[in-house]
Amino acid sequence: MAALDPILNDIDRDLDNALERLFAFLRIPSISTDPAYAGDCRDAARWLEGTLTALGFETTISETSLHPVVLAHAPKPGAPHVLFYGHYDVQPVDPLDLWETPPFEPRLATDAHGARRIVARGASDDKGQVMTFIEACRAWKAMAGELPCGVTILIEGAEENGSQGLPEWVARNRDALAADIVLVCDTSMWNRTTPAITTSLRGLAYFEVKVTCADRDLHSGFFGGAARNPIHVLSRIVADLHDAEGRVTLPGFYEGVRETPPEVLEQWRGLALTPETFLGPIGLSEPAGERGRMLIEMIQSRPACDVNGIIGGYTGEGTKTVIAGQASAKISFRLVDDQDPEVLARTFEAFVRARIPADCSVEVICYKGSRAISLPFDMPQLGAAKAALEAEWGVAPVTVGAGGSIPIVGDFKRLLDRNTLLIGFGLDDDRIHAPNEKYDLASFHKGTRSWARILAALGGQG
Amino acid sequence: MAALDPILNDIDRDLDNALERLFAFLRIPSISTDPAYAGDCRDAARWLEGTLTALGFETTISETSLHPVVLAHAPKPGAPHVLFYGHYDVQPVDPLDLWETPPFEPRLATDAHGARRIVARGASDDKGQVMTFIEACRAWKAMAGELPCGVTILIEGAEENGSQGLPEWVARNRDALAADIVLVCDTSMWNRTTPAITTSLRGLAYFEVKVTCADRDLHSGFFGGAARNPIHVLSRIVADLHDAEGRVTLPGFYEGVRETPPEVLEQWRGLALTPETFLGPIGLSEPAGERGRMLIEMIQSRPACDVNGIIGGYTGEGTKTVIAGQASAKISFRLVDDQDPEVLARTFEAFVRARIPADCSVEVICYKGSRAISLPFDMPQLGAAKAALEAEWGVAPVTVGAGGSIPIVGDFKRLLDRNTLLIGFGLDDDRIHAPNEKYDLASFHKGTRSWARILAALGGQG
Repeated sequence: MAALDPILNDIDRDLDNALERLFAFLRIPSISTDPAYAGDCRDAARWLEGTLTALGFETTISETSLHPVVLAHAPKPGAPHVLFYGHYDVQPVDPLDLWETPPFEPRLATDAHGARRIVARGASDDKGQVMTFIEACRAWKAMAGELPCGVTILIEGAEENGSQGLPEWVARNRDALAADIVLVCDTSMWNRTTPAITTSLRGLAYFEVKVTCADRDLHSGFFGGAARNPIHVLSRIVADLHDAEGRVTLPGFYEGVRETPPEVLEQWRGLALTPETFLGPIGLSEPAGERGRMLIEMIQSRPACDVNGIIGGYTGEGTKTVIAGQASAKISFRLVDDQDPEVLARTFEAFVRARIPADCSVEVICYKGSRAISLPFDMPQLGAAKAALEAEWGVAPVTVGAGGSIPIVGDFKRLLDRNTLLIGFGLDDDRIHAPNEKYDLASFHKGTRSWARILAALGGQG
Repeated sequence: MAALDPILNDIDRDLDNALERLFAFLRIPSISTDPAYAGDCRDAARWLEGTLTALGFETTISETSLHPVVLAHAPKPGAPHVLFYGHYDVQPVDPLDLWETPPFEPRLATDAHGARRIVARGASDDKGQVMTFIEACRAWKAMAGELPCGVTILIEGAEENGSQGLPEWVARNRDALAADIVLVCDTSMWNRTTPAITTSLRGLAYFEVKVTCADRDLHSGFFGGAARNPIHVLSRIVADLHDAEGRVTLPGFYEGVRETPPEVLEQWRGLALTPETFLGPIGLSEPAGERGRMLIEMIQSRPACDVNGIIGGYTGEGTKTVIAGQASAKISFRLVDDQDPEVLARTFEAFVRARIPADCSVEVICYKGSRAISLPFDMPQLGAAKAALEAEWGVAPVTVGAGGSIPIVGDFKRLLDRNTLLIGFGLDDDRIHAPNEKYDLASFHKGTRSWARILAALGGQG
């Protein structure tokens, strides 16, 4: 590993500058789901273009049907070639009043245990993680003059909006994306001291349900008891989605879901992922999923259904005696194994329509869905990455299934026929998608060092 | 009736000016439930003070725990004395984008049938209705030099916020409110051509339920399937409130509810209040209440439960894969007969708490409640008012029960031992509490004429 030492030393020495660069990236409010921030998304793409061009990548900005992607090439003839994927867009920031400091004014803070953390929207998901890879490339270029393998970097701007437009873009740009393997840095460590490689991902099917009863809002004094209330209709739909055992009730929902082999369940039991360790830090203690399942099954190998948002009627201060004309909910499903989001879309819509009174109506919007994916365990790059991570962290990485979907990983398999190594340095308490999102400074620093080692290993220089 | 002719002619002649005065009142955005409009509520009180002082009333503005009340006296020794009650506050205006014109810029419009209507928030509830009484007083003073009976006018500013502070104020000002009977103009006609006197009112119990699960918003990919979702908890509570027959399931809820006598039900059958006529105009066709009940029972003599608002999680454009930490709903009950809002508050809170998982929490806010009230049918003033209304409209008024509560009516009975005649000129399609609220010009004009006649009748000059 001696050849790596100058690279790693450079990363250590340059940490403050690397942080400044990350902060500049974090200051751009690149919220992809809100059209008001389209210009900021473009700014984030331009910032990456400038950064990667300065590092010697041949970089272009390319249009999709939503926000542009950034594509950067550093070929190395004869060497293995990797395609790194990340996203520059971030989640919305509401509720804004729960942020201790403005979400797009990044800062360093020290937590109760003395750990330093980077606080900002996108600090962990995914700008901080993306920059671990870019900073590793910077160190290699600075100290070795070149990268240890060929690298293509693809950073999109619509991941938080279901990667809208990206699959079509990938299909049109297969040649530009040629690589031996895909690398993604958008996942978490097993815990603060143990790295993880994610070898399976749950899929996602996301819907919006808009129920209309009366054609206007009504006074509940005049109409209460006679007029159908769309919040009641919607609540019934939501309540009907789960049975008393915590199972999803949609007909055929569990078709295509495989039982986890007993030996894997045994391994998982040994990981000691308990309600205390997993739910305790967020103020909960009782796993809410299917009765009789281990917590780790609920989040890794079992499908799930959650209402992500609901609104109807008067939601301001005080009281208003109104029966709303409309109410709506956003409802999503996490999929595993062979569950098909297109089949689910049909089943779900039928389930909803069966619960709409004859004189009411419903609109079911179907957002982009993705199947679950999983990685072959005998892939040589998986072994190389494991060794590199163990060298950095002093402990062997855990291979895990992840609860969250990264739909593009399935698209890479389908469109490029390439597997993806998901290696990330987030932590479960990063509050991604929530107020006060953070990324530990240790995640950023040792994450960068980890990628420097992984690049070497994949390039045969480990 | 010849003595009344100059008064009625004056009302006809002065209609344009009366409209201008009403428009000035409607321009004041006196939304009582939103603290941001507290100054506007006071402006509305001041506007009334000026108006009533100019009419010769001895007028004062008096403080309550929320918005001030306006109290105006015009005594007439030896004559019967009436206390008129109304409110100058209005409902919030959201959703603002559904208003065809700004809610506080009143205008005259002509509907598809050629009827002219006054469009503004408060046009019907209750500014337009209040001004029918004040304009009737104006005509009497202008043409006869004095009112036909003693009149006290009490206009409050917190009716849409549960009349907060008013009962305490009434209890402290019993002497100033001495009268033989109370008059209220805050109800509707039977239909466009038939006036109505409301002889019973449903009560109200209004709650807010705030469910907290995790202490923050969570990523549904990481936590979905394991973390309790407060929207699911809340939806279950809402779904459990009614059974498949449309009955409210709270234990003991129907205790104190009396069956309507068969002869009254027979009368009601004759009124031909059908789903087509009552629900058709709002785009519905199927009564949503208790199976086996007539529509008119559902809205007049049976209790009801409605969710008036619900919110939780992400409600913006597009998707967000979040599990909210909190969700909340506003839930209210319409009460009849002897149902006790305080007993209900205890039952409801227990019902809610029984459905909160052990590791979650709930806050149940109990807003002001009111019992149902009803009027003795042999009250002499009821006969006088009926005759006056028949003289104006050419058809006998219907005596009805009303679905909506006006809590202060119960307080007048309890604190002043006085009955209330509820006579109003609103129409079912007035869209009160909703966008594009309107009051028919005919309601305003003939309502004013009706009050001129009723004052005469109650003063013994009919």
